[in-house]
Order: sequence, then C-alpha cells, then structure tokens
Amino acid sequence: MALSTQHLLGIKDITKKDIEIILSTAHQFKEVLQRPVKKVPSLRDVTIVNLFFENSTRTRMSFELAEKRLSADTLNFSAAASSVKKGETLLDTVNNILSMKVDMVVMRHSASGAPHFLAKHINAAIVNAGDGINEHPTQALLDALSMKEKFGKLEGLKVAIIGDVMHSRVALSNIYLLKKMGAEVMVAGPPTLIPKYMAQALDVRVEYSVKKALAWCDVANVLRIQLERQNQPLFSSLREYNLAYGVNRKLLESLDKEIVIMHPGPINRGVELDSDVADGPFSIILNQVENGVAVRMAALYLYSGKDISES
Amino acid sequence: MALSTQHLLGIKDITKKDIEIILSTAHQFKEVLQRPVKKVPSLRDVTIVNLFFENSTRTRMSFELAEKRLSADTLNFSAAASSVKKGETLLDTVNNILSMKVDMVVMRHSASGAPHFLAKHINAAIVNAGDGINEHPTQALLDALSMKEKFGKLEGLKVAIIGDVMHSRVALSNIYLLKKMGAEVMVAGPPTLIPKYMAQALDVRVEYSVKKALAWCDVANVLRIQLERQNQPLFSSLREYNLAYGVNRKLLESLDKEIVIMHPGPINRGVELDSDVADGPFSIILNQVENGVAVRMAALYLYSGKDISES
Amino acid sequence: MALSTQHLLGIKDITKKDIEIILSTAHQFKEVLQRPVKKVPSLRDVTIVNLFFENSTRTRMSFELAEKRLSADTLNFSAAASSVKKGETLLDTVNNILSMKVDMVVMRHSASGAPHFLAKHINAAIVNAGDGINEHPTQALLDALSMKEKFGKLEGLKVAIIGDVMHSRVALSNIYLLKKMGAEVMVAGPPTLIPKYMAQALDVRVEYSVKKALAWCDVANVLRIQLERQNQPLFSSLREYNLAYGVNRKLLESLDKEIVIMHPGPINRGVELDSDVADGPFSIILNQVENGVAVRMAALYLYSGKDISES
Repeated sequence: MALSTQHLLGIKDITKKDIEIILSTAHQFKEVLQRPVKKVPSLRDVTIVNLFFENSTRTRMSFELAEKRLSADTLNFSAAASSVKKGETLLDTVNNILSMKVDMVVMRHSASGAPHFLAKHINAAIVNAGDGINEHPTQALLDALSMKEKFGKLEGLKVAIIGDVMHSRVALSNIYLLKKMGAEVMVAGPPTLIPKYMAQALDVRVEYSVKKALAWCDVANVLRIQLERQNQPLFSSLREYNLAYGVNRKLLESLDKEIVIMHPGPINRGVELDSDVADGPFSIILNQVENGVAVRMAALYLYSGKDISES
Repeated sequence: MALSTQHLLGIKDITKKDIEIILSTAHQFKEVLQRPVKKVPSLRDVTIVNLFFENSTRTRMSFELAEKRLSADTLNFSAAASSVKKGETLLDTVNNILSMKVDMVVMRHSASGAPHFLAKHINAAIVNAGDGINEHPTQALLDALSMKEKFGKLEGLKVAIIGDVMHSRVALSNIYLLKKMGAEVMVAGPPTLIPKYMAQALDVRVEYSVKKALAWCDVANVLRIQLERQNQPLFSSLREYNLAYGVNRKLLESLDKEIVIMHPGPINRGVELDSDVADGPFSIILNQVENGVAVRMAALYLYSGKDISES
Repeated sequence: MALSTQHLLGIKDITKKDIEIILSTAHQFKEVLQRPVKKVPSLRDVTIVNLFFENSTRTRMSFELAEKRLSADTLNFSAAASSVKKGETLLDTVNNILSMKVDMVVMRHSASGAPHFLAKHINAAIVNAGDGINEHPTQALLDALSMKEKFGKLEGLKVAIIGDVMHSRVALSNIYLLKKMGAEVMVAGPPTLIPKYMAQALDVRVEYSVKKALAWCDVANVLRIQLERQNQPLFSSLREYNLAYGVNRKLLESLDKEIVIMHPGPINRGVELDSDVADGPFSIILNQVENGVAVRMAALYLYSGKDISES
C-alpha cells in the first residue's frame, strides 16, 4: 500500500488514494484507542523530533500522544529556547538534529513552505504540522475522518468553511482534500477575509452571508478568528464580528435543518461560535480532537516507511 | 480498599481512612524507591497529563518522577506556551486534552477551586497539585508521612505551622489532615498573616510569638513567605521579618528541647528559616522531598482506579 | 576499566587513560547508532536529570537522545520556569532533586565552577554540560573523536583553534584534551580575544593572523563568536570581523593544502565561517554533531558506575 510521496507536506501534493489509505489506517488505530491498553509497538525504536518553531500546545500534544501510542521515542524542540534565537539558519538547526540520527521530523513553522524547503535537503520523512498560512494537512485529515464517521462518505457532501479563510491553513488544506474526495465546498465570511481570486483558483463557491451558507451546507467548519495573524484589525470589535458572522443557535434554528458543526479549536466563544452551538447536539468538535490522535498515528506510521508488511 | 472519592481534590473532602490508605501505600512504594531498580509496572499504559497553569518546577518534577516510576506515559502541559494565552476557556483546554483519551489529570492552577470545577465536568480522575490559596493535598500527605516516620504516629502530636498561614495552601491542607488524624495544631506568625476567623473556623490554636509556639510544639512546619502572592508588602524588609518571626538556632537553643523542623520549600534562607536550622540535625526537610515521590506514586496509583486486586 | 574520577567535571581533571576509555566506548556506541534499532538497555532504571540553568537546545537534545538510547529515564529542568527565580540557592535546588532519588546529573550553568561546587556536596555522578567560560568536556571529547576518525590518531596533529578563544569553554576543554593526547595546539584570532597569559599558562602557540594559522594546521576548529557573552562589542560590525578573521574558501584555496574544518555550532554564517567552507568537502561539522550523541552515551554509561562487567 505505497503512498505517492515520501513526506506529508500538504494535501495539495498527495493523491486521493493516499488520503484513503491514511483515513483507513486512522480508522484502524482508532479502534486501538478504544482499548484499555492504547499502545502498539509499531514505531518502537523510531525517534521522532517535534520541531515547533511556532507555539501550539494542542497540536504538539496530539502528535506527542500519537508518537507515544506508537511506542516511538520523542524529542521536543521549541523555538523559544533554541539556537534559532542565536541566529542559526533553519537548515543548520535541522541538519544538526538529523545528524543525531533522528528518523522523522514533525514540523510547525510560521513561514509558508518551510517544510517543503527542508524536504529538498534532508532524508528523514517530514510531517507538516502547519506552515504559515499555507497548509495543515493532518487537520484536514482529521476533519475528513470526523465527517466520514458522521456521514459515511465525503463524496457529494456540502461543506461550508466559515470565517477567516484568508489567513487559514486549515481552510486551504480542507479545500484541497474535500475537492479531491468529491465533496462540494463553499467559503463564507466577510469579503475582507475571503479573497475572490483564491475562490476562483480553487474552484469553490463564495458566499458573504453566513446565513445563506448555512442554508446550503450539510457541515459548517467554523474557523477561529486568527487575531494574532492579522496585521491590522478588520473589525472595530469582536462583538461586531459576532453579530455579523458568528454562528449561534438562533441562526441555526431559523433554518429548520440539522447542520453538523466543526471547529479546529481553540474556540473564541462568543466570537465566531456561540457556546450553545459549540456544546450543542450537532457539534462534533471533540470528535475532531479525538480523531486527531488517530490520524496522526496513521500519518506517522505510514510515512515512517515501516509499513513493510503491506508494501 | 476503596477510597471514598473519585478524585484527590483536597484533604477536606477525604476521610481519615482514605488518608491511612494513601500513607500505607506510600510506605510500600517507598520501599520500592530504596531498591536499585526503582520502577514498578503498576500504571503501564495509563496516560497522565500534568496540567500546570502555574509554574512549579519541584512539584511538577516530583509528580513526573512518580509517574515514570509507575511506568505511566506522561504529557506535560504548561500554561505559558498554551492556548490559554489565545483566550481559550479552562474547560475547553481540558476537554480537548481529555478527548485525546488521557486517563488522569494532575493539575495546578492559580485559582482556588479550579480542580473542583473540572471534576464536575470530566470523567478522568483528577489529582490536585495546588489550587490558589486553597489546598495542596499531596504536600500535606507527604508532610504526614514524614512526621509519622519520625514519631510513629500522628495522634496527639503537637504541630506548629509558622509564618504566612493566610496565603498558604500548604497550611490549610496540613490543618485539615492533622485535625482528622487527631494531632494538635497551632498556627503562629504575625497577626497580619494569621486570620483569627480562620483559626476559629478550623479549631486551631493561635500564637503570635514564634518563641512561644516553638516552646509548645513537637514539630515546627515553617512556611515559605510567599512574596509573589502578596498584593502588598507586609514588612518593610525581609530582614525585619527574619528578626521578628524567623526560626534560627539561637531561638531553638534557648528552649532546651528537640523540635523537628519541616519546610515545604523552596526555602528563603535567612528569612523565615536560617541555614543553621534548615541544615541542622533536627531538620527533616529533605525527607519531605523524598517522601513526596512515594506519596504521589500512592495517590496516582490509588486514584487511577487500577487497584482492582484489593478493591 | 576504572576511571580516575567519580564525575566528569572537566578535561583538566581527567587522565589520558580516561580520555582513551571514553573515546573507545564512544566508538562502540557509534556502531549501535548505525543499526536500525539504535537503543541499548545499558542504563535501564537509571534516572538522569538534565539541569540546564542556561539555555542550550542542541546540547540538551544531544544529551537527551543519548539518555534515551541508553534506556535511561530522563527529567528535564530548565531554570527559566524554576524555583531559581524564587530565590532558591543552587545547592537547595539540586539537593531537592537528589532527594527524589535521581542517579545522575547533567548540568549546564552560566557560572564557572558550578558543577565542581556541587560535586563537593552531593553523591550522584555529575556530567558537566558547560560551565561559564570554564569547560565543556563532552564537546572536547566529541571533537577528539571526530579528529581521530579522520586522522587515525591525535598525537602529533596540528590543531588551530580560531576566533573568540577568551570567552570559549570549548577552546579551553579542547586545549586540555589535545595537550594530554600529544597534539600540537595553536590559538588564533584578534589580540583582544586571545589572552597572552592564557597561551603561556597552557603552553599553546599564539597567532594573530588567521591565514598564518591555517598555513600551519591540519585542522581548524573555528569558534562561534559568542556575542551574547561579550559585555561590550569588540568590533564595529560583524562584517569587519568576517573580513579580518573569518574563514572562507578564497583564503583556504590560497594555501594549496587540505585543512579539515570543525565548528562547535551554532554557526554564524558569514561571520566566523562562510557557507562555502562550512558546507564544503573538508568540513566535518555534521560528523561532530553525530559523534556528540555517541560520546555522551559513553560518558553517561561510564560515569554511571554501571560498568561493573569490566571494572
């Protein structure tokens, strides 16, 4: 069951077949996670370094848990305390780590394309844990697993991605994945956060009314307002954003249909999503988190090259 | 040997019988720690997350060592680098971590009652590693184990808790424990740091002269002056505090009796405790640290619910 | 195969025989690191604490990897989040950690002599991971292993240590080691960074022209300009330093000989070393990093006192 690429850099670069293999492997690992003993020896004696040049507690913990449940040895590197501060280049940092005979690299970086740059220079397998505003492939895969569990399939599913699409690697990876799997995709939100050229290039629908987007979709993937990534505030207040583009129960009830609610977290409660929806019966937000560990176990296992039994 | 509660939130909530079970289990684990091989497989395949919303190197390391010696898998979360900074709620943070199928939570938080709030919302067992100025139950348990080792029993023992009682979760947990076990308790220190209503409510003796407190007690548990938790300085200088309320050798020698000296650490040498006493023959301060690992192994083991053989 | 000291505090304190034992053990561990399974059970059930009172990602990761490959349990302590900030003394911090029954201490500290001070007070074996501007013994040992692999032996080898010798613990440990092993040593760089008394006391050659030093040597160990350790800038610009003392391809090509290039990292590219040399055919910089793990495995193993089979 060979994958088409050596690294998991982005959903853009992998095939529909690759996605199916990862999701089906994740499904198997998810069964492991239901057992009292949640550990498998699959990556025993494999050393994985988590290179986080950008803070991300939840993604880092999800990867670290996945690694431990595969029995891998883990090393954590965070830029805050690192030689990066001393002016070392990215390539020097990584080459040094690889000279220590590390087998795999999980990498998050604030610069779009950082893992792609590395992949040209090093031999170890790389799993992208988010690069700038480009891609976050394991997030799209865990979103896909969560939707597949809910609906049985992705083909023909209507997915609205709502909010700050422009600054979101989650949005971009989701769009690539959903298009490859035959789902219909709409992006919705304020015109300042939904670049038209992007929608055209990616062949997705655009809608500036959140209500109309909800009326159309089966699933709403509500994005976090990435305040920390915006150079200048686009709204006079978060309250204003909430009034115009927030998803709340009143809005959903006005539509007389069931819409599955997703969010990549962390949620700004009362901004892009209200608590009555985030914690409501149609929210699968915590399933997403749970599926994150299974999807990351699958990605690490498959890209480690250890999957010899089935190659 | 069932415990009366699912979580270890505070000494206030547990029974005398619970305390005895924990201390007796800690005593057994302490024997393990004397062996060349200090590890037992008791919590193999149990994943414990250390949620530290407040810095505490020594308590975090003590818990982490206890977890490793029980063969548990550990994940460390510190608030400094976390989604908490991005405005996520405590419940969202913890729910996300639990969705990753973590079995137990060790939690420190600057807000009194934080672990109690969580316990109402999550299923995993919680061990409180200190909440605000409320409780620090494993510290009281390790203090109890240290006193029991020294005196054979806690009943009838005269314990003086000296210093900044008002801001001290160590003091409060110790008072609850000692009263339940039949010890006599006195709190001593400056009137500004010893609230009278508290002494009355808790039924403990109050003494504003440290010398008189020492003359009365078998054990002096000298508290750290928690400068970082006081909103305004209560003394014009630390030197002034030392002169009026510090414990030193001259004071002890004037009493012509042996008094066992305890301190929860880290010590402000020359403030609440002088070096000649901290490092003197009656100090059991390093025994307390050693017992910390054994007590935390016992608490983690017992509250994990894995103790099926004896239930 | 007994070593002459209980601790690895510095190269100054150990014998030629000790160095040979460590290098030969490192050579054996290096073979382990070439295998698919890079782990040995040598330090199973040994707990090692990495006490880093000064940030150092690469040295900390190298030690941590070495510890994991020896199957030791590891605890990481960094000063940033520690009781040190609360005013605790070094001895209190370490005594507390040792009371938790930790077997070995790997220690980095900004104060020269800090590990030597500790060694007088504690029983656990200490490996110095860098103390102030004094010593960095495992760096000198990994440099020695790298040179030995390249040249077969150290005796008679001509080694030029180039750059900021005055502020460099790497330089000092290398000088001690190379002199003990019979190599010839020259220090080269700007007069302000090469103290004459030091050269005399250590019996090494001094050269203020980098070109002349290169013309003399077999190996150039180019030091990092430790800007963060200089109280006042010694050059009006880094560019000026590069022009006068930087090592670049043009300079090397003018000499018509092969010179092996080393650097302890992290490299300031374009300052003390140009990229065409750092990444050139005579650079063994990444071999140094690889050898770091093997040398640290050897040091940890030998100083743990577990080497009973050969004692």
